[in-house]
Amino acid sequence: DFLGALDEVKPAYGAEDEELQTYILNDILSWTPAIDQILEDGKLIMNQARNSDKTPLVSVLLHGPTASGKTALAARLGQLSDFPYVKVISPAKLVGFSEAGKIQTITKIFDDAYKSQMSCIIVDDIERLLEYVQIGPRFSNGILQTLMTLLRKTPPKGRKLVVVGTTSKKAVMKELGINECFDSEIHVPNISNSDELEKALTLMNTFAPAETQQIKGRIEGHIWVGVKSIIMAAEKARQDDYNKVERFVDAISGGFVA
Amino acid sequence: DFLGALDEVKPAYGAEDEELQTYILNDILSWTPAIDQILEDGKLIMNQARNSDKTPLVSVLLHGPTASGKTALAARLGQLSDFPYVKVISPAKLVGFSEAGKIQTITKIFDDAYKSQMSCIIVDDIERLLEYVQIGPRFSNGILQTLMTLLRKTPPKGRKLVVVGTTSKKAVMKELGINECFDSEIHVPNISNSDELEKALTLMNTFAPAETQQIKGRIEGHIWVGVKSIIMAAEKARQDDYNKVERFVDAISGGFVA
Amino acid sequence: DFLGALDEVKPAYGAEDEELQTYILNDILSWTPAIDQILEDGKLIMNQARNSDKTPLVSVLLHGPTASGKTALAARLGQLSDFPYVKVISPAKLVGFSEAGKIQTITKIFDDAYKSQMSCIIVDDIERLLEYVQIGPRFSNGILQTLMTLLRKTPPKGRKLVVVGTTSKKAVMKELGINECFDSEIHVPNISNSDELEKALTLMNTFAPAETQQIKGRIEGHIWVGVKSIIMAAEKARQDDYNKVERFVDAISGGFVA
Amino acid sequence: DFLGALDEVKPAYGAEDEELQTYILNDILSWTPAIDQILEDGKLIMNQARNSDKTPLVSVLLHGPTASGKTALAARLGQLSDFPYVKVISPAKLVGFSEAGKIQTITKIFDDAYKSQMSCIIVDDIERLLEYVQIGPRFSNGILQTLMTLLRKTPPKGRKLVVVGTTSKKAVMKELGINECFDSEIHVPNISNSDELEKALTLMNTFAPAETQQIKGRIEGHIWVGVKSIIMAAEKARQDDYNKVERFVDAISGGFVA
Amino acid sequence: DFLGALDEVKPAYGAEDEELQTYILNDILSWTPAIDQILEDGKLIMNQARNSDKTPLVSVLLHGPTASGKTALAARLGQLSDFPYVKVISPAKLVGFSEAGKIQTITKIFDDAYKSQMSCIIVDDIERLLEYVQIGPRFSNGILQTLMTLLRKTPPKGRKLVVVGTTSKKAVMKELGINECFDSEIHVPNISNSDELEKALTLMNTFAPAETQQIKGRIEGHIWVGVKSIIMAAEKARQDDYNKVERFVDAISGGFVA
Amino acid sequence: DFLGALDEVKPAYGAEDEELQTYILNDILSWTPAIDQILEDGKLIMNQARNSDKTPLVSVLLHGPTASGKTALAARLGQLSDFPYVKVISPAKLVGFSEAGKIQTITKIFDDAYKSQMSCIIVDDIERLLEYVQIGPRFSNGILQTLMTLLRKTPPKGRKLVVVGTTSKKAVMKELGINECFDSEIHVPNISNSDELEKALTLMNTFAPAETQQIKGRIEGHIWVGVKSIIMAAEKARQDDYNKVERFVDAISGGFVA
Ligand SMILES: Nc1ncnc2c1ncn2[C@@H]1O[C@H](COP(=O)(O)OP(=O)(O)OP(=O)(O)O)[C@@H](O)[C@H]1O
Ligand SMILES: Nc1ncnc2c1ncn2[C@@H]1O[C@H](COP(=O)(O)OP(=O)(O)OP(=O)(O)O)[C@@H](O)[C@H]1O
Ligand SMILES: Nc1ncnc2c1ncn2[C@@H]1O[C@H](COP(=O)(O)OP(=O)(O)OP(=O)(O)O)[C@@H](O)[C@H]1O
Ligand SMILES: Nc1ncnc2c1ncn2[C@@H]1O[C@H](COP(=O)(O)OP(=O)(O)OP(=O)(O)O)[C@@H](O)[C@H]1O
Ligand SMILES: Nc1ncnc2c1ncn2[C@@H]1O[C@H](COP(=O)(O)OP(=O)(O)OP(=O)(O)O)[C@@H](O)[C@H]1O
Ligand SMILES: Nc1ncnc2c1ncn2[C@@H]1O[C@H](COP(=O)(O)OP(=O)(O)OP(=O)(O)O)[C@@H](O)[C@H]1O
Ligand SMILES: [Mg+2]
Ligand SMILES: [Mg+2]
Ligand SMILES: [Mg+2]
Ligand SMILES: [Mg+2]
Ligand SMILES: [Mg+2]
Ligand SMILES: [Mg+2]
Repeated sequence: DFLGALDEVKPAYGAEDEELQTYILNDILSWTPAIDQILEDGKLIMNQARNSDKTPLVSVLLHGPTASGKTALAARLGQLSDFPYVKVISPAKLVGFSEAGKIQTITKIFDDAYKSQMSCIIVDDIERLLEYVQIGPRFSNGILQTLMTLLRKTPPKGRKLVVVGTTSKKAVMKELGINECFDSEIHVPNISNSDELEKALTLMNTFAPAETQQIKGRIEGHIWVGVKSIIMAAEKARQDDYNKVERFVDAISGGFVA
Repeated sequence: DFLGALDEVKPAYGAEDEELQTYILNDILSWTPAIDQILEDGKLIMNQARNSDKTPLVSVLLHGPTASGKTALAARLGQLSDFPYVKVISPAKLVGFSEAGKIQTITKIFDDAYKSQMSCIIVDDIERLLEYVQIGPRFSNGILQTLMTLLRKTPPKGRKLVVVGTTSKKAVMKELGINECFDSEIHVPNISNSDELEKALTLMNTFAPAETQQIKGRIEGHIWVGVKSIIMAAEKARQDDYNKVERFVDAISGGFVA
Repeated sequence: DFLGALDEVKPAYGAEDEELQTYILNDILSWTPAIDQILEDGKLIMNQARNSDKTPLVSVLLHGPTASGKTALAARLGQLSDFPYVKVISPAKLVGFSEAGKIQTITKIFDDAYKSQMSCIIVDDIERLLEYVQIGPRFSNGILQTLMTLLRKTPPKGRKLVVVGTTSKKAVMKELGINECFDSEIHVPNISNSDELEKALTLMNTFAPAETQQIKGRIEGHIWVGVKSIIMAAEKARQDDYNKVERFVDAISGGFVA
Repeated sequence: DFLGALDEVKPAYGAEDEELQTYILNDILSWTPAIDQILEDGKLIMNQARNSDKTPLVSVLLHGPTASGKTALAARLGQLSDFPYVKVISPAKLVGFSEAGKIQTITKIFDDAYKSQMSCIIVDDIERLLEYVQIGPRFSNGILQTLMTLLRKTPPKGRKLVVVGTTSKKAVMKELGINECFDSEIHVPNISNSDELEKALTLMNTFAPAETQQIKGRIEGHIWVGVKSIIMAAEKARQDDYNKVERFVDAISGGFVA
Repeated sequence: DFLGALDEVKPAYGAEDEELQTYILNDILSWTPAIDQILEDGKLIMNQARNSDKTPLVSVLLHGPTASGKTALAARLGQLSDFPYVKVISPAKLVGFSEAGKIQTITKIFDDAYKSQMSCIIVDDIERLLEYVQIGPRFSNGILQTLMTLLRKTPPKGRKLVVVGTTSKKAVMKELGINECFDSEIHVPNISNSDELEKALTLMNTFAPAETQQIKGRIEGHIWVGVKSIIMAAEKARQDDYNKVERFVDAISGGFVA
Repeated sequence: DFLGALDEVKPAYGAEDEELQTYILNDILSWTPAIDQILEDGKLIMNQARNSDKTPLVSVLLHGPTASGKTALAARLGQLSDFPYVKVISPAKLVGFSEAGKIQTITKIFDDAYKSQMSCIIVDDIERLLEYVQIGPRFSNGILQTLMTLLRKTPPKGRKLVVVGTTSKKAVMKELGINECFDSEIHVPNISNSDELEKALTLMNTFAPAETQQIKGRIEGHIWVGVKSIIMAAEKARQDDYNKVERFVDAISGGFVA
C-alpha cells in the first residue's frame, strides 16, 4: 500500500540522525492509538513533498500541552522522512545569540535545505524561538517575520521542503498569525485517564505490576499529564524505595508542574 | 476594440518573465467570470499609464482572503503589461535584511523603474513586507512610510509607472492608511460554493469526474477556500489512493487552515 | 490696488520654478470662487512678510481632504511670491533617509532660506514628513520637534520668511500641537455637488458636453471628491471609449478611494 | 527704596544684550498693571540672589498662554538683573542637535554660569526643550532629568544663580514634576477684554484712533488673545488698506490660532 | 537507607565551598520541621540526577517570602550535593554588566557545568537577575529567554545537571512562564507564630530566656517575619542594652520591612 | 551609656567632611523633638554596623516631603558615623552622564567603600537618581536594578557598610520595590503648625520677635511647609523691608511651591 513504501525505508545513519535521537531519549511509547495516527499522517506529508511538483513546500504544526512529547514526535517524523537533509532549529542551539544572529542562523538552515533535493526542517518550540512572553506581550518580531516568510517561501525549482513545527501555545501562534503559515496542524494529546496511565507505565517498566495498580487506585479517574512528566516523576520515585508509589503520585499531582 | 490592442501583445521573454512564472506555478484557472474581469480591469490600468500624460503614476491594490490567488494574478498582470521593466518586491526576497536594508532595496527598485519609460512594480504581501503583527500591533513604520511615499511619488517627466499591490489584510491596510495611497482596489474572491469548486476541480484534472461528484456530494452548499488551498488539499489526497476523496474533504474542512 | 502690485509680478524663472511646476501638472482649475480667495489670501501674507519689520516670519497651513489640490495650491503660492528663494520640503525628497538625515536636510533648507532676504518654504504633506500613522499612534518626534521649532524661529535681522504647510490630517496636527505653530490656516475644499463637478469637467475638457451632462445625471446631488481624483478617473475612463461615462462614474464612486 | 537701587542700574551692553533684545522685537507694552508687577517681582528675586548667602540659587517659572509675551518678559528680567552672565537656553539654539548634544549644551551653559559670581539663565519654552508632545505623551526624559537636577544644584561656594523658566503648558510641567524644581511661579496674562485691547492698540500705534474704536465696537466684551497675536494680526491688516479693520478682526477671531 | 548514602558524604572543600558558606552567614536554624523536609527533598533530587540516565537534567524552584532564608537553603543544597561543580548565579555577581554581558556570563556558567560529570547551578533571586520591576512591568526578556532555554536544555550525553532556583515573587515567575521550566517547586516559610519565634530566638542565643519570654508576651499570636529579618532586628536591639526587648519588637513590627 | 560613646566622637575633618557640610548650608535646627530622635536612631544603626559581625550591611531610608530637610539630615548622619569612608551619591554629581556612566560611577563608589573597614554611603534623592517621572511612568531600570542589587550585596568578609537613602516619593519607592531593599525607614516631617513655625523662625533669627508674632497671627492653625522653603521665603522677604511679613506669608502660602 501507499504508506508501506515509506515504512520499509531505513532511517538515515550519521551525525544528524544521532542528534535526532537525543530528542527521543525515552523512545516513543504507543500509549494511545493517536500516536500511530500522528506518525501515519506525517508519512503522508513526506510522500506529498516527494511526489508532487505542484506543492514543493509542505508544512505541518504539531501542537499540544507542555511535556506531551511534541519534540520527540517531530524528531521521529524527521527520521521517517529519510530525506538527505534533516535539521532541527531549536532554542537551545541559539542560546546567547543576538536577534540578528538568530535570524541569520535560521535563514542559513533554510538556505542549506534548498541545496538538497529533499529536505525536512524541524522548527522546535516556536514560542521560545520567538522569545515570547505573555507579559506585554513581548517577542522578537524579527524572528517571527523571518519564520513567517520562510514558512511560505517556495523552494527553488525542483527542490522539495517539509517543515515540521512544534508549539505548546497554539493560542499564541494564532494571535501572532503564524499558524496561517502552516498548511496543516496535528494535535499531540496528554495522558488523561488512569487506563492511558496504566498503558504508559506498563510500557515504561519502572514500576512492578502491583505498584502500577496501586497508582491506578490512587489516581481515580481523570488526570492531565504529559508523557515527559510521567517519566520525570517515575525517576524521582525510584530514588525512595520505601515510598515509591507515594512519591510518584505526589510528583504528578502538584509537586511537578502538570 | 481598445482592450484588443493589448491582448495581442506577447508577454516579454527573459529572466524577469521566468521569475513571474514562478508565482503562477499552477496556472490561472477561470473558475469564475470574476477572474476574467480582474484581468480586463488590469489591462485598462496598464493602458492608462501608457497613454495618459496627466497621470504618469497609476496604482491598484489586489485584496482578498489568504490563498485566494492574489500573487498569481498580480504576476499575470505584470506579464500582460508587456512593459520593459516588471519587478516583484516580495518578503521572501528581503528575508534576513535589516530594516534599513529592506528600505534601501525597495527604494532601489523604484529608482530603477524610473529609468525605464514604462515600468510595473508588484508590491506583494504588503502586511508581510511591513512586518505587521496584530499583537501590539507592531510593524516597521520605516518600511510603511517608504511605501506610502513611493506609492505617491510622481515619476520623472515622461516616465510611466504602474504599481500593483497585494494584501490579505485589507482592514490593516486601512488602519495604516496605506490603502489611501492606491488609486483603486480590486477584490480577489475565494471559492464559495460547490459549483465553483466543481469548476475548479474539473479544470485542475486531479480527480476523476466521479470523484469530483463524490466531493460535491460531501461538501453540500457553501464553502470558503482559496484556490491555492484546493490545490494543496488535492495533492495530499493523491498520496492515499484508497481514501482520496476522504482525505481531500478532511484537508479543506479543518486540517488545513481555510 | 494693494493686491494688484503683486499680480503684475512675473513668476521667477529657473530650476526652482520648473520644480514648482511639477506639482501643478494639471493646472489650477477655478471650479469654485474659493480657489481665487485662497490665492488672494496667500498674496496678502507674502506682502506682509515683504513689508513688515515687526513680523519677519509669517506662516500658513493649507488643510483639506486627500486629493483636494493642496500641494498644487501651495506650489502656486510659491510662484506668486516671486521671492528669490522658494523651496519645497516633501516626503518624496526624503525617502530612504534616516531620521537624522531628514532632520539635517530640513534644517539645512531653513538655514539656506535665512541667507536670502526673502524666502518661501513649502512644507508639504506634514503627516507624511512626520512619518505619522494612526496606529499607536507613531510618528517621528525628532522631525516634529524640528519643524515646531523652525516654524517659530525668528529669521536673522533683516531677513523675511514665509512658510506654507499642507496637510490632509488637521485633527492630527492639532493632537500633535503643530497647528499652534502656524500663524493662520486656509481650508482647501473638495468638489461637493454636481454643479461644481460640471464646472471642473468643462474646464478639464476630457468629456464632450453631452457626456458631462450624462455624468451629471448619474451623480444626482452631493458628491465628495478631490480635483486630483476627478482627473485620475477621467483619464482611466478615456481608455474605454465604449463605456467612458460608466467607467468615470464607477471610478469616482467606489473603485477609487474618495 | 530697596527696588530703586536696581532701577538705576543700566542694562549691560554687548553681544548678549543684543541677543536679549531680539526676544523683545516689539517692546514691552504696559497694557495692564500686571506687567509692571511682574517686572517688580523679578527684581526682588535678583536682589535676593545678590544679597543672601543662605539661598545662592533662586528660580522662577513664568507661565501663561501661547503668545502672551513670556519670552519677551524673561528677556527683560535678564536685562534688568545686570548680572555679568545672562544666557538664554532656547529650542531654536538646539535645533538639529541629538539628545546627548542638547544635554551637553545645557550642562555647559550652567557650568559657564558657575564661573561668574552672579549669573542668570533663561530656560525658554521648556515644553519644546523637552520635545514634549501630548500624544503618548512623549518627551526627552534625558533633558527633563538634566533640567530638574540643574534647577536644584547648589552653585559652588560664593557663586549666585537665578534661573528664569518659561512655559505655556503649566499642567504639563506639573505632570512632569518640573514645577516643583522652581522656587516660585509668575503668571503672564492674555488680553481678555476690549479695554485692554484698546490700551494695547493705542500703545502700538498701528491703527488710527477711529479704527481702534471701530475694532472695539466689533469685539464686544471678552476676548482671549496674546499680545504677540495682536501684533501679527495688525501687521497683516496693514497690507489691505481698504479692509484694515475687517482683516484685523478676522485674524484675531479665528483665522489666527488664538 | 537511600537518603543515608548522601548523608555520609562530606561537603566538598575549596574556594567554591567557601563562597557557598558566605550565603549561610548565620547557619541554618531548625526552627520548624519544614526546614528538615526541604533538605531531604533536595537530597532526593540530587540522587535522581546522580542515578537516572533517563532524566539527566533535574530542576527545582525554592520560593517564599522576602528574608525567609531561600538563598541560604539553596546554598546548603549545593553543599549537600557534593557534586564537583557547584556554582551560584547571583545578581550581585552581575552588577554593572550590560544585558549581553549578563547573558554571556550565565551561558558560560552552564557551559562550564556541562564539562563536569555532575553539576549543580544555583540561580539565585531570579526576579533580580531578570531586572524585574512591577511598573510596566519591565524585565530583561533576553535574560529571561536565556534562563528559560538553559533550564530545559538537555546536558551532553552522560552529564548530569541539577538547577536550584530561588525567588520571592512566585506570581511573577508564573506570569513570565518561567515556573513551567522547573520540574518541581519547594516552599520556604516565614516564622508565623510566637512558638516558632521562641524556637528561633532560643537557637540564636542573642536574648536571655527571660527576654525571649518578654518578647513572646509582647507579640501575642500571629506574626509574619523571615528568619533573616529576625536576625537583623536582634542585632539592632543588642546595641541598646536598656531597651533591648522594646527595640526588637519595634524593629520586627514596622520599623523593619516585614 | 551606649549612645554616649558615639557622641564624644569628633566629626572627621578633610575634603569629604567639607562636602558633607555643603548639604547643611543652614545648620540643623531642632524645631521639633523628632529631629533629635532621628539623629539618635541613626547613631544606633552606625553602632550596629560597627559592632555586629552577623549584619555587616545595614541600610535605612529617610523619606518625607519635598524641602523637609532629608539631605541635610543624611549628611549629618554621615558626619556622626565618623567612618573613614563617607560618600554621597547625588543626581547633581551624575548630571550629563549616560545611563552606563551613572551605573559605573555608582558601582565604583560601592567598590571603593568595600576597601575601607567601615563605610557609609548616602544615596540622595533616589527618584532623581532613577530619572523617575510619573508620566509613563519612566525611569532607568538599569540604575534601579544596580541600586537594588548593591543595597543587598553583602560586603567582603570583615567589612561593614551603612547605606542612608533619601526620597520624597515613598509611594514610588514602593511601586518600584526598592523600599524592600532597605532594612528600616525613618520619616522626616514638615513644619505643620504655627508653634513649630515660631520655633523654627526663632532659631533662624531672620525676623524680629514682633515680626514672628505677626506671622504667627497671619498663619492661624495648620500649615505644611518644609524647613528649606521656610528659609527661602525668609530670605526673599528680607529684600523688601517695608513688606517683610507680607512677603514671607505670600511666599510660603502659594507663590512658593509648598
Ligand atoms: N508517545 C510518545 N510521544 C512522545 N514522546 C514520548 C512518547 N513516549 C515516550 N516519550 C518520551 O517522552 C519525552 C517527550 O519529551 P519531549 O521533549 O518531546 O516533550 P515536549 O512535548 O516537546 O515537551 P515541551 O513541552 O517541554 O517542549 C521524550 O523523552 C520521549 O522519548
Ligand atoms: N484563478 C486563479 N487565480 C490565482 N491563482 C490561481 C488561479 N488558478 C490557479 N491558481 C494557482 O493557485 C495558486 C495561487 O497562489 P497565490 O500564491 O497566488 O495565492 P495568494 O492569494 O497570493 O496566497 P497568499 O494569501 O498566501 O499570499 C498559484 O499556484 C496559481 O498558479
Ligand atoms: N483648483 C485646483 N487646485 C489644486 N489643484 C488643481 C486644481 N485644479 C486642477 N488641479 C490639479 O489637480 C492636482 C492636485 O493634486 P495635488 O497633489 O495638489 O493634490 P493634494 O491635495 O496635494 O493631494 P494629496 O492629498 O494626495 O497630497 C494637480 O495635478 C493640479 O494641477
Ligand atoms: N507686555 C508685553 N509683554 C510681553 N511682550 C510684549 C509686551 N508688549 C509687547 N510685547 C511684544 O510681544 C511679543 C511677545 O512675544 P513672545 O515671544 O515673548 O511671546 P511668548 O508668550 O513667549 O510666545 P510663545 O507662547 O509663542 O512662546 C514680543 O515681540 C514683544 O516685544
Ligand atoms: N532555617 C534557616 N533557613 C535559612 N536561613 C537561615 C535559617 N536559619 C538561619 N538562617 C540565616 O538566615 C539568613 C537567611 O538569609 P537569606 O539571604 O538566605 O534569605 P533570603 O530568603 O534569600 O532573603 P531574600 O528574600 O532577601 O533573598 C542567613 O544568614 C542564614 O544563615
Ligand atoms: N532640622 C533640620 N533638618 C534638616 N535641614 C535643616 C534643619 N534645619 C535647618 N535645615 C536646613 O534646611 C535645609 C534643608 O534642605 P535639604 O536639601 O536637606 O532638604 P531636602 O528635604 O533634602 O529637600 P529636597 O526635597 O528638595 O531634596 C538645609 O539648608 C539645612 O541646613
Ligand atoms: Mg518540546
Ligand atoms: Mg500571495
Ligand atoms: Mg499633497
Ligand atoms: Mg516664548
Ligand atoms: Mg535570597
Ligand atoms: Mg534632598
